[in-house]
Amino acid sequence: MRVQDLIERKRDGGALTPSEIGWLIQGYTAGRIPDYQMAAWLMAGFLRGLTEEETLALVEEMLRSGIVLDLAELPMPKVDKHSTGGVGDKTSLVVAPAVAACGVAVPMISGRALAHTGGTLDKLEAIPGFLTQLSLTQFRSILAQCGLCLIGQTEEIAPADRKLYALRDLTATVPFRPYMCASIMSKKLAEGIDGLVLDVKTGNGAFMRQEEEARALAELMVRVGQGMGKRVIALLTDMDQPLGRWVGNGVETAEALSVLRGDLAGDLPALCLELGARMLVVSGARSGLDEAREEIRSVLRSGAALERFRQGIELQGGDPRVCDDPGILPRGRFQQTIYADRTGIVAALDTTGIGRIVMDWGAGRTRLEDPIDLGVGLELHARRGDAVRPGDPLVTAWYNDPAPLGRMVARLSAAWRIEESPPAPRPLILAEI
Amino acid sequence: MRVQDLIERKRDGGALTPSEIGWLIQGYTAGRIPDYQMAAWLMAGFLRGLTEEETLALVEEMLRSGIVLDLAELPMPKVDKHSTGGVGDKTSLVVAPAVAACGVAVPMISGRALAHTGGTLDKLEAIPGFLTQLSLTQFRSILAQCGLCLIGQTEEIAPADRKLYALRDLTATVPFRPYMCASIMSKKLAEGIDGLVLDVKTGNGAFMRQEEEARALAELMVRVGQGMGKRVIALLTDMDQPLGRWVGNGVETAEALSVLRGDLAGDLPALCLELGARMLVVSGARSGLDEAREEIRSVLRSGAALERFRQGIELQGGDPRVCDDPGILPRGRFQQTIYADRTGIVAALDTTGIGRIVMDWGAGRTRLEDPIDLGVGLELHARRGDAVRPGDPLVTAWYNDPAPLGRMVARLSAAWRIEESPPAPRPLILAEI
Repeated sequence: MRVQDLIERKRDGGALTPSEIGWLIQGYTAGRIPDYQMAAWLMAGFLRGLTEEETLALVEEMLRSGIVLDLAELPMPKVDKHSTGGVGDKTSLVVAPAVAACGVAVPMISGRALAHTGGTLDKLEAIPGFLTQLSLTQFRSILAQCGLCLIGQTEEIAPADRKLYALRDLTATVPFRPYMCASIMSKKLAEGIDGLVLDVKTGNGAFMRQEEEARALAELMVRVGQGMGKRVIALLTDMDQPLGRWVGNGVETAEALSVLRGDLAGDLPALCLELGARMLVVSGARSGLDEAREEIRSVLRSGAALERFRQGIELQGGDPRVCDDPGILPRGRFQQTIYADRTGIVAALDTTGIGRIVMDWGAGRTRLEDPIDLGVGLELHARRGDAVRPGDPLVTAWYNDPAPLGRMVARLSAAWRIEESPPAPRPLILAEI
Repeated sequence: MRVQDLIERKRDGGALTPSEIGWLIQGYTAGRIPDYQMAAWLMAGFLRGLTEEETLALVEEMLRSGIVLDLAELPMPKVDKHSTGGVGDKTSLVVAPAVAACGVAVPMISGRALAHTGGTLDKLEAIPGFLTQLSLTQFRSILAQCGLCLIGQTEEIAPADRKLYALRDLTATVPFRPYMCASIMSKKLAEGIDGLVLDVKTGNGAFMRQEEEARALAELMVRVGQGMGKRVIALLTDMDQPLGRWVGNGVETAEALSVLRGDLAGDLPALCLELGARMLVVSGARSGLDEAREEIRSVLRSGAALERFRQGIELQGGDPRVCDDPGILPRGRFQQTIYADRTGIVAALDTTGIGRIVMDWGAGRTRLEDPIDLGVGLELHARRGDAVRPGDPLVTAWYNDPAPLGRMVARLSAAWRIEESPPAPRPLILAEI
């Protein structure tokens, strides 16, 4: 087999067999196929399309490029949740301990901030001492002890995805459904889970702004996951404004802890209930969604979820006192509030812009190993549909770096659009797939 | 500027400005832009297309990546000819000395065998001692002395093309008109010529089998050359059978010498007259095609062209005795003839197959530095439209390696299709552009 011939076939709109996809991915991961041939193939695939069979083969090969965990030694069902990325999304920190408190294990491999969106690992690292780079042996051990463990991708998990993602990033081949699906699913299916809940975001703060694109990705991922013998559900959820009231690392962790302490008002707890309940269902542990939702609500209200998180934090080296005193989490030492300058209703928030402000103010990195400012954060006082009058606060920024303050204030002010009439209502959960 | 953004624009069907093309090609040639990003861009361009403005910019940048010869010190006009590649095409060895004998300089930079087609350099190297890898200083000096010099591409000429061609070869991005045009024209326009004649082959032995494709490439190259201030003519010529009666290196050089000795019967001398006459016209030296054709015929008949070639051979280190005694050229020491097994008319020849037999029997290389067998050759006794009876010879093979004989005989037999009715007539010159 010659790589050129496989590139040519894809270039001319043909399809590769699963064994050809396997040869390609294995050869690339092992370094036998050079980056430039893989780049040409990726672009040909991007422009000519991949069949569902090719996509499935791609997922399987990327998955098999590394270790696929077998957690059969754990007696309980295992489940995970994945979000395609949004602003203010701290649901993982709530649903993982809540689901674990219901007796279902959550082996969760998460990512860091990407573009304008935050990452679960960064939020966890806001907890003093918390370690996210654990070995798979430590991962298994912690999971067995408390039913949840939240770590970063290791060298052993889907190495083909790590290499391919870096190449796609540099060759403009990222935003293509089959590749996105393969990247997400190859990592998640390596976790040894029975079921998976996908939170596919859509709106002006999501990677997929159009609902149709998000739906198509969700459907593809569900089919691929089911094709590989997993129970998979996807929720299409709103990302036309940040989720919850806080955006940043330390501040989002604090907000997640308040939900774990039983504060169930607002969109964040609502989404946590929906995601957590579906995790119980796809794990096979519960059959009824209403019953499952009640159970998640109950472990949040009773403090059982918080206790589970405390145990997990301690096992991952973090300071468990954060559960009682969120004040030990980092938060910027300066504070600036932006006020409404007119009467009206918040018609729209520039969600991507809000995410970028936090990143540009210190929460984003240029290189993966760069340190970030875990204290920078925004508190949103006025959200979509809220009525405001001149002098009402829109947003408060906590920050450590005063240098860009003027620019940031201008950008923050521009992120809120106030109009006379209310925006069209938009539900939090747009669809279930 | 970021390469990713230029890849993305091309991926989405947009066009690059000339200065963006310049930045890309210069960055790639200098090694600042890696192969994998260039490969992605090349594939995106292949599938999305390049505008004529982009193609022109590509030619200009590839041309400017190296030295562009200025031959203004030579008092006579300068002209060259380029063929897109065929089987049995030894016209360069005839027209270069013939045109030089008419007082027009021919600074010719040629290539080696590629795929199933032969290369002028290999045919020249069949002449004992003949050197094709000369410096540009030697090139100029020989050109000044005898009006012709035939060498290989040097490091200084269009280095961007050398690097891009190697990448295209490995990424299935070769057969795309704008890239083919840029590759050919960037090298030819670096020769310091006033005019150029393009011999664009079409048929079952050409890279462009369909006449429409060949015509489109010819038209593009003519427009690009004219856009850069050169006089350019293209002939679309038949490659549905090998050109002339011989295929191989030593044997083709011998056939070219027989034309230079005044043997003007058959398709090879006919094409040489047409190409040579047009070279005189586009050089600006002659205005009438009929007059020019007569002059080429006259220098072939008088021996003036042969004398010019003898002088060139001597200056390039070759043994000039070859002009009087072609027997010193290599020719296989074994001989095998294939005979017709039925009565009929030769309806078709598998021209690519015939070219491949010669390559596979020793005339082809896997790596550029591989030595080749200059003696392997085929003599075609029966060509398209010839009537044959059982026992009439179709082809004689001269070879040095008897190991694959059985296979080669089978392949040779299969390359001649004999039918009852004659094939549709097909002219040697299909069109002039």
